[in-house]
Amino acid sequence: MGGALRVGVAGLGTVGAGTVRVLQTHAALLAARAGREIKITEVSAKSRGKDRGIALDAYRWHDDPRALAESNEVDVVVELIGGADGVAGEVVRSAMAHGKHVVTANKALIAHHGTELALAAEKAGVSLAFEAAVAGGIPIVKALREGLAANKLSRVYGILNGTCNYILTTMRASGREFADVLAEAQKLGYAEADPAFDIDGVDTAHKLAILTSLAFGTEVNFKAVHTEGIREVSALDIQFADELGYRIKLLGIARRTENGIEQRVHPCMIREALPIAHIDGAFNAVVADGDFVDTTMYEGRGAGAGPTASAVVADLVDVARGPRVPAFAVPAGALETLKPAPMAAHRGSYYVRFMVVDRPGVFAEIAGALRDHAVSMEAILQHGRAPGEKVPVVLTTHETEEAAMQATLAAIVQAGAVVEPPRMIRLEAF
Amino acid sequence: MGGALRVGVAGLGTVGAGTVRVLQTHAALLAARAGREIKITEVSAKSRGKDRGIALDAYRWHDDPRALAESNEVDVVVELIGGADGVAGEVVRSAMAHGKHVVTANKALIAHHGTELALAAEKAGVSLAFEAAVAGGIPIVKALREGLAANKLSRVYGILNGTCNYILTTMRASGREFADVLAEAQKLGYAEADPAFDIDGVDTAHKLAILTSLAFGTEVNFKAVHTEGIREVSALDIQFADELGYRIKLLGIARRTENGIEQRVHPCMIREALPIAHIDGAFNAVVADGDFVDTTMYEGRGAGAGPTASAVVADLVDVARGPRVPAFAVPAGALETLKPAPMAAHRGSYYVRFMVVDRPGVFAEIAGALRDHAVSMEAILQHGRAPGEKVPVVLTTHETEEAAMQATLAAIVQAGAVVEPPRMIRLEAF
Repeated sequence: MGGALRVGVAGLGTVGAGTVRVLQTHAALLAARAGREIKITEVSAKSRGKDRGIALDAYRWHDDPRALAESNEVDVVVELIGGADGVAGEVVRSAMAHGKHVVTANKALIAHHGTELALAAEKAGVSLAFEAAVAGGIPIVKALREGLAANKLSRVYGILNGTCNYILTTMRASGREFADVLAEAQKLGYAEADPAFDIDGVDTAHKLAILTSLAFGTEVNFKAVHTEGIREVSALDIQFADELGYRIKLLGIARRTENGIEQRVHPCMIREALPIAHIDGAFNAVVADGDFVDTTMYEGRGAGAGPTASAVVADLVDVARGPRVPAFAVPAGALETLKPAPMAAHRGSYYVRFMVVDRPGVFAEIAGALRDHAVSMEAILQHGRAPGEKVPVVLTTHETEEAAMQATLAAIVQAGAVVEPPRMIRLEAF
Repeated sequence: MGGALRVGVAGLGTVGAGTVRVLQTHAALLAARAGREIKITEVSAKSRGKDRGIALDAYRWHDDPRALAESNEVDVVVELIGGADGVAGEVVRSAMAHGKHVVTANKALIAHHGTELALAAEKAGVSLAFEAAVAGGIPIVKALREGLAANKLSRVYGILNGTCNYILTTMRASGREFADVLAEAQKLGYAEADPAFDIDGVDTAHKLAILTSLAFGTEVNFKAVHTEGIREVSALDIQFADELGYRIKLLGIARRTENGIEQRVHPCMIREALPIAHIDGAFNAVVADGDFVDTTMYEGRGAGAGPTASAVVADLVDVARGPRVPAFAVPAGALETLKPAPMAAHRGSYYVRFMVVDRPGVFAEIAGALRDHAVSMEAILQHGRAPGEKVPVVLTTHETEEAAMQATLAAIVQAGAVVEPPRMIRLEAF
């Protein structure tokens, strides 16, 4: 058994405290698995006095995580500060420059600066590991980087944000509206006071950008992610989805297309029979399709102290066993520039709901706009005709181009056929 | 980039040919990921002339795989011969004794001799890798050995045999009986001419024994697996399961109990709402529960040339990157002796179907036997009463001990209350 791996933990929030707890609880087990002791030597956080429910006395304390990053008593820095820029980035860069391995749960940092940081890690001869940055406790980074290494991947997608999945699951179960369920989720602590990051899809987009690089060997390109959130999903659409045999999920999807690599985050309707349609509540799931392995799926808790700390500590065990896999599976210098496929060129099927006043001619206007843009209808649903009153008309299309669909919707609005903006949700036929 | 990793492939059946195909197709991609070329140098199989749809001219041919295991031109031997004993074992042992790494898909070999082989690998300072031995393309060995390394696991279970899952899925979809669906599966090539290994649960038990060791750090103990197959599952039971909100799956289940480690393979009824209930056809799935990560699930194709070769080649990439994880996560000498929990002490709920002639007193006999053994009924189902004729009576129990349940069934048979042996299926409340 080699010498102990000395760990410095920067950031003692939920995940930081969880990481300390795992390392304390399973010290013997981890030493057996890693072949050497994994030992916290130093920690850093803003407030020393705060009760975190864990004993920290044995560790050297730093008010400034930058000091921890430079310490001679640390072999690996665990960065759990968060944020794409600022202190977290400084700590990570400094730690690597000082010859230390880095383990981080910081998806924003990796999504924005992943390629640059991977290059820096290789230059310094250290490991940069971020299993905890994507899908919490699910070992999906390892699966893509190692487990599926024999495959050329064609697609990776998933439910990557537990808050959104919880809200959508609860909306379906209760029939309640988005705002109502969000408010409750905030009260229960399942959603942040400022929920924008989650519900507008940004968090999912961060994670997707990382998965894309791992899957396709391309530079991380968060800016190329087409991102929509779940604010517009209504109880009515969930009801229609049920009727049509679908579930609505916020997915992050990356795939190779003839136009380049498509990265998109938006609500999707997926067939009820698919296993991923049954991933409910705070759970995450990732599906990866490879040319030899075919379809594989990975499911688990996407957030929380325990699951995220599980991923952080798995990375530490990897480092202790002897790091030897590049951050993004291939050397950072070999990552290709990602050629983004334009969203306008996306091809797929669509669900659209129009609110119309049921008068003669309305259907003709909608049907005419579809015809004019060569969009072919698959099914149409209307309940409870009430002449002179506002009623929903739902239709699904055959495969068509995003640009044609958007032009169709604009034309229908333009023609005054609808009394509310149409609601469009993409159908994903996995 | 280091020197090439020289691979010898012993066995060129479906998986062997698939492995060669992956290595040929993705040579450049694999070199980028592994940091060095992965190059087949030698192959061996029974019949040299056979057309396998792949070019083998560039490789040195051995009629005897034992010669390949001793070759100086091979760094790693891929054993795809199969069988718990005989040539496969000789090849693996000889390869390690000659300082070569071993990658194998041979679940029988690992289930019967895993601990001994892991010790031999460590003694020789080589890697013994068997991702392909469990659940085909799903990287579950890596997940347990590395991805979940931060956790003490409490349970691992899964759908581990695609043939059984295909038969059960088809029985449910079509309403047809086992023998009929099996015959069709054999005709379609989804089941072997001699299907006993699959349908009697032995293949599942092999895989479960391996998962148990990885999950709990215990010596592989295949003999301790309680094994039942799916021959007794009838269309009628599938119909009742549906009515009760369950699906019937053949599961392998290992868990820590107060009596020791329970390893069992048998048909289970699981709630329809669980994601694993929707794993259909030839797909496999494994669920692992850890103390910090909570529940995680892994799904994919459990067999076939592509998925299994994907796992074999992932192991080769691992070896090429630099092996450094013990075969069973901890050094083989540190594996604990597995203390098997006796099946009679298993606690759970049960589904039982009795075929009775509907006459006064039959219910009293059944109810009396339940009372005598302190087995508490949860629900009872009977359709279509036909006095004087044979009808099914179905009941589910609250949690009880296996021994009590078995004694109850024996007493009911003894009392002459039933006209066929009762059918019992365990309910699993995951």
